[in-house]
Amino acid sequence: MDVETPKRPKVVIVGAGFAGLTAATKLAKADVDVTVLDRHNYHCFQPLLYQVATAELSPADIAWPIRHVLRRQKNATVLLGTVSSIDLEAKKVIADTATLDFDELVIATGATHSYFGNDEWEKSAPGLKRIEDATVIRRRLLMAFERAELSNDPAEREALLTFAIVGAGPTGVELAGAIIEVARQVMPSEFRKIDPRTARVILIEAGPRVLPAFPDGLTDYARRSLETMGVEVMTNTRVVNVDANGVDLEHGRVDAATVIWAAGVVASDAGRWLGAKTDRAGRVIVERDLTLPGNRNVFVIGDTAAVSREDGSPVPGVAPAAKQMGAYVADVIASRAREAVPPPAFVYKHQGDVATIGRRSAVIKLPRANMTGFSAWLFWCFAHIYFLIGARNRIAVAFKWVWDYITFHRGARLITDQRDQL
Amino acid sequence: MDVETPKRPKVVIVGAGFAGLTAATKLAKADVDVTVLDRHNYHCFQPLLYQVATAELSPADIAWPIRHVLRRQKNATVLLGTVSSIDLEAKKVIADTATLDFDELVIATGATHSYFGNDEWEKSAPGLKRIEDATVIRRRLLMAFERAELSNDPAEREALLTFAIVGAGPTGVELAGAIIEVARQVMPSEFRKIDPRTARVILIEAGPRVLPAFPDGLTDYARRSLETMGVEVMTNTRVVNVDANGVDLEHGRVDAATVIWAAGVVASDAGRWLGAKTDRAGRVIVERDLTLPGNRNVFVIGDTAAVSREDGSPVPGVAPAAKQMGAYVADVIASRAREAVPPPAFVYKHQGDVATIGRRSAVIKLPRANMTGFSAWLFWCFAHIYFLIGARNRIAVAFKWVWDYITFHRGARLITDQRDQL
Repeated sequence: MDVETPKRPKVVIVGAGFAGLTAATKLAKADVDVTVLDRHNYHCFQPLLYQVATAELSPADIAWPIRHVLRRQKNATVLLGTVSSIDLEAKKVIADTATLDFDELVIATGATHSYFGNDEWEKSAPGLKRIEDATVIRRRLLMAFERAELSNDPAEREALLTFAIVGAGPTGVELAGAIIEVARQVMPSEFRKIDPRTARVILIEAGPRVLPAFPDGLTDYARRSLETMGVEVMTNTRVVNVDANGVDLEHGRVDAATVIWAAGVVASDAGRWLGAKTDRAGRVIVERDLTLPGNRNVFVIGDTAAVSREDGSPVPGVAPAAKQMGAYVADVIASRAREAVPPPAFVYKHQGDVATIGRRSAVIKLPRANMTGFSAWLFWCFAHIYFLIGARNRIAVAFKWVWDYITFHRGARLITDQRDQL
Repeated sequence: MDVETPKRPKVVIVGAGFAGLTAATKLAKADVDVTVLDRHNYHCFQPLLYQVATAELSPADIAWPIRHVLRRQKNATVLLGTVSSIDLEAKKVIADTATLDFDELVIATGATHSYFGNDEWEKSAPGLKRIEDATVIRRRLLMAFERAELSNDPAEREALLTFAIVGAGPTGVELAGAIIEVARQVMPSEFRKIDPRTARVILIEAGPRVLPAFPDGLTDYARRSLETMGVEVMTNTRVVNVDANGVDLEHGRVDAATVIWAAGVVASDAGRWLGAKTDRAGRVIVERDLTLPGNRNVFVIGDTAAVSREDGSPVPGVAPAAKQMGAYVADVIASRAREAVPPPAFVYKHQGDVATIGRRSAVIKLPRANMTGFSAWLFWCFAHIYFLIGARNRIAVAFKWVWDYITFHRGARLITDQRDQL
């Protein structure tokens, strides 16, 4: 009989969003070798992407190099690469840059926007999931004002100054509030031919109310706040087509040069890589310990996993849920490595829901209380500063918020890489 | 005889760099209508571009919307557009977005990098003149380390960790110093397979010394400082070819995955638009009052103009010279508008030369004194903070410099838009 040298398990984590990065950092003290693979070199703080899209923050304010975050974690290696397939039999992840052997695999590749089968709409209506999306939207938003100033055709000018946002979840509400503020508070003194205050921001929602995850009282408050700010809110309004000049609704049409898609998400390709059963949104259906059915060494977490709460309702696709799943699988993997009993099932703790409405209001639903208005907005600010990674970014973002709150300016109004200009 | 209503002269300024923007702001009180046309919506503070290229600052830290700078100047209109031609007869500027009538025209369209007739080198060796150039260089610099970490071939790894900079003027020297610091101070703790400290930074200069505009003592100091930091300085070394894998020298070759071009500049296309006589660098030869020979209503200023000092030597292509020319033509145009006698000739006042060498040294040549070392570097910091536009950017940049000085970090290490990746 051979005596085997004990070998440290190889853990491969694909994706360094909230779920994957939390799994990696929680494995710091485990007796395993961790490799984090991501197609970007940075972790992006998605909750503030809308502030990059609306020219308040710079991309670097909300993104950090993954290898910088993990620099002191000696058991972690970071590699750049895009997964093309996974060989479950041979236990290999095949990426464009490397092939990685694994003993335990954690898939945390997130979600992207879904056009419900109309992918051709993407060109006219970009979504907001990645840094590149945010700079595309920023460019279109700023270019619309520039082109309106250049136009001599009143109808064209009106379409250029109309911004349609499809989907009234937190992202849609936050974008609508930020864009109306750019139009009414930031831009007016800077244009000579157009009056940016005449810009229309239209928030289009298929369902009966904005912020559907929130209770009725907060929903009503959010809608009233948006309308007071000047946003036109259209609920029970289904979009049937999107083109370069606007959106067709079930009844009527909105001519808008800028359309932003905040309506739906679809999970990453992980289901295909794994040959796994997925739900309608492409999320992999996992066991209660977040493993792939029939394969206890493959975990799927974050927005790519379809996970249910104890009452049967789905775990929402929010950052705290992703982090909790990351921490849970790290616990399972670390327990297995030291031959302890892993926690039997993932239990999601809902911490609350939050959405800002412009620069001085927010709605927050906590387990035991709701908050609205300025105090909710301050709470939101502090929470987001707290969850940013790194003191440098915390200070820089806090400074920019305070400064722009006082001055009504926007500090990152660059139109770069004008490929889709004019 | 008809009585004419006095008409306000229409001044069109093409280009909102240091020259054009200074001309515009100095015309604030003149009885003229000013239109500023630029192909970007922002003014870029070029002296700090190398800090964007080396991941210290974000693009928005060194760029401001032109219309924001001019928002309170009621006689100024800002338009986005790219000039295609100029009709001097009909007094019209023809751009892709608009056609503008002018009574006085100021051309301030700057310069770009010159490959001395080898434009095919640009693909392999980007230059550093615009925000987009800086993000291209940043991406290549960061990707080189990522690819080296992924590589298993020692020769490839060595080429990936070799950075060649062609041209040892201030831009080349500043890039070399910043890149060796990224390699030796920022990156080492973050990689597992490679040792970033082994990276080579090679500064290649055709002439006999670095910083040729500086006196010998400062040149020697700069060279010694660079070499102490680890930069390999090759003077009297002519580049005969550039390809994707390195540069061929007159004698020998350097294998380098990253090559940056800081060797020469060529003026914008203004000479062609105007059908004007230009010097070898494409700069329009102007009269002593910066007008086009034979056309007193067309001015050419900044890096696009070939202007001589009183001793016959050329006015250098630096920010203070551009600003002085902008202020001078504003004075001429304002004088004409109020029917006063304009100042007869532009006189350049040289304020000094400055270049930083890494994070704690600089060389400065002032009219009456020279400075080197840490005190020169502090002087450089304060001067650049002072010349930035807007308190928000001043505070943000100062904070980032102090923070990164203490921590040895780099805050803007994003690889975005990976079109030329891998």
